[in-house]
Amino acid sequence: MFDIRPVAYVIGLLVACLGATMVLPMLVDIAEGKGEWPVFAECAMITILAGGMISLACANAVEEGLTIQQTFLLTTGVWVALPVFGALPFVLGATQASFTDAFFEAMSGLTTTGSTVLSGLDELPKGLLLWRGLLQWLGGIGIIVVAMVFLPELRVGGMQIFRSEGFDTMGKILPRATQISSSISTIYVSLTLLCAGSYIATGMNTFDATVHAMTTVATGGFANYDASFGVFGPGTEYVAVVFMMLAALPFVRFVQLSTTRDPGPILRDSQIRGFFSTALVLVVLVTIWRMQSGDATGEPAFRKALFNVVSILTGTGYASADYGVWGPFAVSLFFFVGLIGGCAGSTACSVKIFRYQLLFASIRVQLRRIQAPNGVFVPRYEGRPVSDEVLSSVISFFVFFVVTLGVLSVALALTGLDFITSVSGAATALANVGPGLGDEIGPSGNFSGLNDTAKWMLSFAMLLGRLELLAVYAIFTARFWRA
Amino acid sequence: MFDIRPVAYVIGLLVACLGATMVLPMLVDIAEGKGEWPVFAECAMITILAGGMISLACANAVEEGLTIQQTFLLTTGVWVALPVFGALPFVLGATQASFTDAFFEAMSGLTTTGSTVLSGLDELPKGLLLWRGLLQWLGGIGIIVVAMVFLPELRVGGMQIFRSEGFDTMGKILPRATQISSSISTIYVSLTLLCAGSYIATGMNTFDATVHAMTTVATGGFANYDASFGVFGPGTEYVAVVFMMLAALPFVRFVQLSTTRDPGPILRDSQIRGFFSTALVLVVLVTIWRMQSGDATGEPAFRKALFNVVSILTGTGYASADYGVWGPFAVSLFFFVGLIGGCAGSTACSVKIFRYQLLFASIRVQLRRIQAPNGVFVPRYEGRPVSDEVLSSVISFFVFFVVTLGVLSVALALTGLDFITSVSGAATALANVGPGLGDEIGPSGNFSGLNDTAKWMLSFAMLLGRLELLAVYAIFTARFWRA
Ligand SMILES: [K+]
Ligand SMILES: [K+]
Repeated sequence: MFDIRPVAYVIGLLVACLGATMVLPMLVDIAEGKGEWPVFAECAMITILAGGMISLACANAVEEGLTIQQTFLLTTGVWVALPVFGALPFVLGATQASFTDAFFEAMSGLTTTGSTVLSGLDELPKGLLLWRGLLQWLGGIGIIVVAMVFLPELRVGGMQIFRSEGFDTMGKILPRATQISSSISTIYVSLTLLCAGSYIATGMNTFDATVHAMTTVATGGFANYDASFGVFGPGTEYVAVVFMMLAALPFVRFVQLSTTRDPGPILRDSQIRGFFSTALVLVVLVTIWRMQSGDATGEPAFRKALFNVVSILTGTGYASADYGVWGPFAVSLFFFVGLIGGCAGSTACSVKIFRYQLLFASIRVQLRRIQAPNGVFVPRYEGRPVSDEVLSSVISFFVFFVVTLGVLSVALALTGLDFITSVSGAATALANVGPGLGDEIGPSGNFSGLNDTAKWMLSFAMLLGRLELLAVYAIFTARFWRA
Repeated sequence: MFDIRPVAYVIGLLVACLGATMVLPMLVDIAEGKGEWPVFAECAMITILAGGMISLACANAVEEGLTIQQTFLLTTGVWVALPVFGALPFVLGATQASFTDAFFEAMSGLTTTGSTVLSGLDELPKGLLLWRGLLQWLGGIGIIVVAMVFLPELRVGGMQIFRSEGFDTMGKILPRATQISSSISTIYVSLTLLCAGSYIATGMNTFDATVHAMTTVATGGFANYDASFGVFGPGTEYVAVVFMMLAALPFVRFVQLSTTRDPGPILRDSQIRGFFSTALVLVVLVTIWRMQSGDATGEPAFRKALFNVVSILTGTGYASADYGVWGPFAVSLFFFVGLIGGCAGSTACSVKIFRYQLLFASIRVQLRRIQAPNGVFVPRYEGRPVSDEVLSSVISFFVFFVVTLGVLSVALALTGLDFITSVSGAATALANVGPGLGDEIGPSGNFSGLNDTAKWMLSFAMLLGRLELLAVYAIFTARFWRA
């Protein structure tokens, strides 16, 4: 078997960093003065110590490069280890959650899913609310780095199509991850500050603005109130729409823009065009549906359609209205919109625009080929021919996604969940969207009433979906461990 | 534009043949003596005349060979023209159906879907019941010929993998269709007679045995009673299981068996092995579920599980119990089982075993490739490497299937159907299974209460699913008509 110590070293470091960030909610709890601060002090200590010890134990095996197996293990390992420690404040804090619930909440945070098992959010200590925001915010930047550095290198889910774009691919993987993280961080922090500032300008208080800005740019969807965005005004909704859309765009374009000052690459990017066209069509459709069914008129009809479509399409999962009562069309539509997703290389999740574009390009070629069997046709993306390797990679992802969705739905049903809860729960977890459908887990419900087995299954599904499935499945094969 | 007359000629002939078969229900109506026979006499006259006139008008353009465009148009044209005329007896006969309902019923028959808009089946004139059986029986043999001759030639949905198997592929397409039809017909008729005989042996009357044998070997699922197979005894259920399974196997293997007397190819066939393994796992799962939930015990638990699993897996769609009340696990499971399907080259429908096998082979290769980026791995099927062309064809089918399912569900919801009815209705129509889920279209309901728009959408979906989607979609492209 290969050496897992270099992997454990990095995971330990990241765990320790997570522990260090627990100081922020501790400070907030001290400021609030409800006496909750010792919880975060304790959690920070445990987490920093545990992470530090792991790292120290493995420090003598550190290398600059990682093998392909080590890289896989690192990617999955980080998203298993961090939720374990991220769950501590929910167990020890005011929520007094079981470990199952706490792990679910932390996994939902770090994968930017945003499904919650907590209710009574309005009454929680501010430290815990900030912690939920921080988990999503860290998960968001983490996933951008993974999507830009690790997945293309691992050739997972067709991400290799983005390999040589914008960044030099020749360096060692860990130094490159560090380098990319720092240029992305600047963008990510600026976006968050801009978002928080805009929220404050629309009347939100500073604390809510900070937490919601974090969960907006992470397309995470955790909110500080049980009613989610239902408590805020129209201006706030428009601000959220702008930043949810920005967060769903490929971050490499922002980096390019900041260095070259040329908006050309953004305007020409097929994913971005596809994403905006999709959003436009959906918003128009839902607005018309709402207006002709007489439920709403004028600006509110448009705004509610815009907000909820963008929220589900980007996989954020805020709700500003219970679209469960918008009639059957809206319910079915939102279910399938959640399976579209934003752009690759962003914090958005699900199948993603570029995969549909590649799949449709392949189908177009297929249709031509059956009409002219002797012609030679090659699918193209952004003008360049797409290699068979990328295509078969995208396809494996899509088939795996659909089959996993089916198996998971049946498995959830096996634990006693009804059809709509199992199917929409499986979909929302795998696509990292957040809310499901139906009375139990729909936009006006939450996940606390599910049985523990279902919660563990959903936690696993969030992990799978966030790491593009194959990155996780790969480590379950015997061949992997023999290497 | 290409010459459509050779296509119209063949379609005219087939319409006339359909008219000729209307004599059979006419004879049954005469024998029953309810005075219903003039309906079929009239329908037969209209249909034979119309078909004959079309053929005569185009007779001077007949050629032995068809271009690829003509072959596409023929395949879809047949499955549009025949339901139009097949619908006549439902409009003019005792059911007094609207054309929408009648077309839905005829399309459901000829595509071997088996969803019905008729209730009060127990009281219908026997002629109409026989007609429903005949539609499915003819649709069943028709689809085997299409699957063995047309689809491989058209390179649709990966069916080209079966091109050179068992039959010479060099002949002209129409003579070959005729030749294959005759050898398949012998098998098909023998199976039907054997099935009818076995039904009679278990106590069914001759008429019911005939109709149900027709709808069994066609994996069609129309029954003579509103309660479907609920009215028959255990012996009948076991007989049905045997013949549903036989009907879902590739018919080319039966032809081989009858000429070579060697069962080897059947036992070695990957599809057949995959099909039986899938069935076994599902039956065991459902039996255990039913027994541990205390709903049923011993033989009845096993039998009900066996019958309903086989019925849905083969896409037959008979129900011998309302599995809608078997609890959430059974409901979700049956939904996804309907998306598996039987073997290619049979009367069974849906995605089909061989496509999943090819997709999984491709994913296995993908997993190896990401673990050893420099290795060369090629997916194999039955020991032979699978060409990229076949794989991308299978993939196009799968993606098209999933995306069509999504779009259709949303479109159905737009007409006012609730989530479970839209999604399960779209799935059952596209997979040609028959029953949906939920109170309205579940195993104990029927499709009569849906609005007309939904019925037309579902009729179109049945056509799409039966002809493996791309064969239909191909004729909607502008390039097709320019050729
Ligand atoms: K989310
Ligand atoms: K059927």
